Amino acid sequence: MTDVSFEVLRKDPSTGARLGLLKTAHGDVETPAFMPVGTQGTVKGLLPETVRELGAGMILANTYHLYLRPGHRLIESLGGLHRFMNWKGPILTDSGGFQVYSLSRLRKIEEAGVTFQSHIDGSRHFLGPEEAVEIQESLGSDIMMCFDECIPHPAGYAYAEQSMERTLRWAERCRNARRKDGRALFGIVQGGMYPDLRMRSVEGTVKTGFDGYALGGLSVGETKEEMFGVVELAAPLLPADRPRYVMGVGMPGDILECVCRGIDLFDCVLPTRTARNGMLFTNSGKLVIKHAQYRTDETPVDPSCDCYTCRHYSRAYLRHLYLSREILALVLNTIHNVRYYLRFIESIREAVRNGRTGDLLKKFRENQAASDSREEPPSTSWEE
Amino acid sequence: MTDVSFEVLRKDPSTGARLGLLKTAHGDVETPAFMPVGTQGTVKGLLPETVRELGAGMILANTYHLYLRPGHRLIESLGGLHRFMNWKGPILTDSGGFQVYSLSRLRKIEEAGVTFQSHIDGSRHFLGPEEAVEIQESLGSDIMMCFDECIPHPAGYAYAEQSMERTLRWAERCRNARRKDGRALFGIVQGGMYPDLRMRSVEGTVKTGFDGYALGGLSVGETKEEMFGVVELAAPLLPADRPRYVMGVGMPGDILECVCRGIDLFDCVLPTRTARNGMLFTNSGKLVIKHAQYRTDETPVDPSCDCYTCRHYSRAYLRHLYLSREILALVLNTIHNVRYYLRFIESIREAVRNGRTGDLLKKFRENQAASDSREEPPSTSWEE
Repeated sequence: MTDVSFEVLRKDPSTGARLGLLKTAHGDVETPAFMPVGTQGTVKGLLPETVRELGAGMILANTYHLYLRPGHRLIESLGGLHRFMNWKGPILTDSGGFQVYSLSRLRKIEEAGVTFQSHIDGSRHFLGPEEAVEIQESLGSDIMMCFDECIPHPAGYAYAEQSMERTLRWAERCRNARRKDGRALFGIVQGGMYPDLRMRSVEGTVKTGFDGYALGGLSVGETKEEMFGVVELAAPLLPADRPRYVMGVGMPGDILECVCRGIDLFDCVLPTRTARNGMLFTNSGKLVIKHAQYRTDETPVDPSCDCYTCRHYSRAYLRHLYLSREILALVLNTIHNVRYYLRFIESIREAVRNGRTGDLLKKFRENQAASDSREEPPSTSWEE
Repeated sequence: MTDVSFEVLRKDPSTGARLGLLKTAHGDVETPAFMPVGTQGTVKGLLPETVRELGAGMILANTYHLYLRPGHRLIESLGGLHRFMNWKGPILTDSGGFQVYSLSRLRKIEEAGVTFQSHIDGSRHFLGPEEAVEIQESLGSDIMMCFDECIPHPAGYAYAEQSMERTLRWAERCRNARRKDGRALFGIVQGGMYPDLRMRSVEGTVKTGFDGYALGGLSVGETKEEMFGVVELAAPLLPADRPRYVMGVGMPGDILECVCRGIDLFDCVLPTRTARNGMLFTNSGKLVIKHAQYRTDETPVDPSCDCYTCRHYSRAYLRHLYLSREILALVLNTIHNVRYYLRFIESIREAVRNGRTGDLLKKFRENQAASDSREEPPSTSWEE
C-alpha cells in the first residue's frame, strides 16, 4: 500500500481522454495534470507560493541534479525536499536516468548500473536501480520513477531491444529496493520507436507491477507521428486504474494529443525555459518579446490571460526588461508561460468533464496547421 | 506650489534626528526613509508589490538609464513610469548627472551641459539642466533632482570650486525649466570635501530655492569622518522645514549617523547589489552565503528577521540556490536585504519617536567597532 491513490472520475467517449484524481500525502491533484519542472529544488524564477497560485498541483524535481548538488543526504537531514524548498504540494522525482545519459560524461553502462562523471566537477559516480530508489526516498518524493536507460534516437533494433530488456530487469530491482513506506513508484516503458518492443516493455513492466506507468524515450527527436503512434499503442495496454505519464512532453498541442490517447500526467521545461529566452505562449501563437514591434505596445502579452504579468504589465515594459537583462524579465515571463500551460491543462480537464475533448482537439489541430505554415517551433529538448 | 509637502513631526533632542512626513500625490512617506533603487524601472529581482510589502514608501529611479533605454518619451507615451513599472507609490528620480560621470564615456563638460557616449551602444547624447528636468517630467517623477556635476574624489580646490559654482548656475536653470505642474524639485549641494565650498553651495542653493535639498558627492571614497563632517556642517544650514537627502549613502551605520545629523532621506544600491553577490545583512553582522559553514545550517539567515526569506528558508537552501546560480537565490537574497534595510530604518524612526536615537547610535557604534576588527566592509559604490 502506498499513500498515493488514483481514481478515474470520468472518461470522454469522444477521444478516450480521462479525468482523474491522484491523491497523495501532500494533497490531491486533478488529472490530466501538468507538472512544472523544479530541477534543482526550485521552479526557476518562481516562489513556491507563486507556483501554487498559478495552479500547479504537483511539481517534478530532478534526482540527478539534487544527488550531485546539494546531495540527497543533506536534503534528508534537513527534513526532505518539501521542507528544504518550501513546497507543500506533492513532488514527483525522475530517476536520474535521463540526465545521466544527456548531461554527464564518461558513461559506462553495465548490468549493475551506470558509472558517470558529474557535469559540474567531473567527479565519478555510480547510479543503479537501488541507488536511484534510495536517493528518491531520501529526497522524500511522493512519486518515484524507476531507473531506466534512455536510448538515443534513432537507435538500431538490437540495441533498443537489449536496452529495453535491461530496463525491465532494472524495474524489478527498483521495485524490490523500495522501503514500502508509502511512496509510490512508477514503472517506465521503453523500446524506442519499435512497436513490438514497446508492447513487450509494457507487458513486462505491468507484470512487475507499479503504482503508475510512464512512457519514456519520447520527445527525443522523433516525428509527431512516431510519438503519438507509441502513445496510441501503449496507453490502452496499461492498467486502466493506474495513472499514465508521458515524460518530458511537450508543446501544448502534444499534451492535448496525448490526453486524447488516455494520458494523465505531463512535465516539460518548455514553459520555463522558453520564458527565460523571451518566448511567450499566447492563445494566438508564440510571441518573441524582444521584437521591435512590441516597443510601444501597451497591451498585455495575451489579453485573454488572467496571470499576474498580463494583468499588470505591457509588452513594451516586458520588452524593456528583457533587453535590459533584468531578473524581473525572467520572473514575469515565467509566471506568464507557466500560467499559460496550467490554464491550458485546466481547459483540457474542463473539456473532459464536458465530453468535448474531440472538439478541442479539432480546433487545436486547425490552429496548429495555420500556425505551422507561419513559424518555426522552438526546440523541444526537455532537460532543464 | 507642488503636490509634495513636508512636515517635521518630531525632533529627538538627544541627537537632532527628525521624524517627518513627506506627502506626495502617490502617497505619504514617513521619514527618515530609505529608498530602494529601481535603476531601469525595476528594483532588481522584486515585484513592485513585494517592494511595498517589504515596507518601502518611495523608490528611486535612474534618469540616465531610463533616458537611454527605453527612452523617456516612450515611457511618457505609455502613461509615465509609475504605470509602466506598476509602482503605485512615489518615485524620486535622480538627474542623470552621477551616471553621466561614472558610467558613460567621452564626456565633454561645458556650461550648457554634458556631451557623452552611451555605455550601452556608444551613441552620442547631450544632457543639460533643461534636458534633465524635461526627462524627469516625462517620466512622471514625484521628486526630481537638479542636474549637477559630480566631481571625483579627491579633487583639487580650484576644480571643486569651479564645478560647485557651475552646479549652482545649473540649479537655477533647472528651477527655471520646470513646468510647475506639481512635481517637487530638489537642489543638490556640492563642493567636495571643502567646508567653505560646501557652505557657499548651501547658501547659493537655498537662495535659489527648492522643495528639498540633497547633499551630493558623498560616499565616493572619502573617509567616514569627511562624510559625516560635510553632513554635520551642511545639514543645520538647510531650511528646517524642507526634507534633506544624502544621496547614495550607504551602510546601515552611515544612515544612522546621518539621521542623527538631521538627514531625512536615503537611497543606496547596497542591499540589492550585495544580495545578488550573496552577501546578506544580519543583526549579528554580514553573512556570505556561499561559505561552507552554512552547508547544513538549517537556521534562517537572521533568526530575528521577519522577512519572507527568513520565515521559509534555511541558510543551507539559500547556499544551494546561490551555488547553483538559481534566479531564486537573487530574489530571496534581495527580499532579505531590502527588508533588513527597511526594518533598520523603521527602528530608527521608532527611536526618533521615543527620543532614543542617541542610545541607538551608541549601541551601533559599539557593535561597529567590534565588527570592524573582524571583517572587511563590502565595496560601497552606489551606482546600480
